[in-house]
Amino acid sequence: MDCELTVELLITYDVDTTTPEGRRRLRHVAKACEAYGIRVQKSVFEVVCRRSDWMYMKQRLNEIIDPAEDSIRIYALDRGSFAAAEHMGQSPPAPHDTPLVF
Amino acid sequence: MDCELTVELLITYDVDTTTPEGRRRLRHVAKACEAYGIRVQKSVFEVVCRRSDWMYMKQRLNEIIDPAEDSIRIYALDRGSFAAAEHMGQSPPAPHDTPLVF
Repeated sequence: MDCELTVELLITYDVDTTTPEGRRRLRHVAKACEAYGIRVQKSVFEVVCRRSDWMYMKQRLNEIIDPAEDSIRIYALDRGSFAAAEHMGQSPPAPHDTPLVF
Repeated sequence: MDCELTVELLITYDVDTTTPEGRRRLRHVAKACEAYGIRVQKSVFEVVCRRSDWMYMKQRLNEIIDPAEDSIRIYALDRGSFAAAEHMGQSPPAPHDTPLVF
């Protein structure tokens, strides 16, 4: 991916997971976000995508969530912000540029 | 607060709220974060603090969480990033510079 055209988006999703519908929406949001990034907490996603994909992402998330029940916030960060994030507690996720070994 | 010395920190907290202990820790994390900012989702906090308070914040959060069960991530954002965040769904929180009217 051409680095000049990419953006780092931090997406946080607030949903009631005590209901099956809420859990289903969370799964769908996770699937949409994981197409472009990684899940770093249950409902926090670090997405690296082209600027042109950003509009598509928002449209897709808008289709999934229940606006009366849920909220999503999207923060556009400087490139390199994900790598600089501080982590406390349970093992942090693998960084975005780590190769997957099967 | 002197703007030159402040930093915007986005703090995301992953905790199991199905247990009373998890809910108690979330309350304490919220209290620590709300001393410097606002709660924008159940476990997402926008904190504006002096750089000198950042170390204190981290120390306090470290005391509260259960590192075997929880995770906290702290993103240092450019000033103005909170105001530029996009919001979808339930009503967004009041911005940081909104006066409280009682």
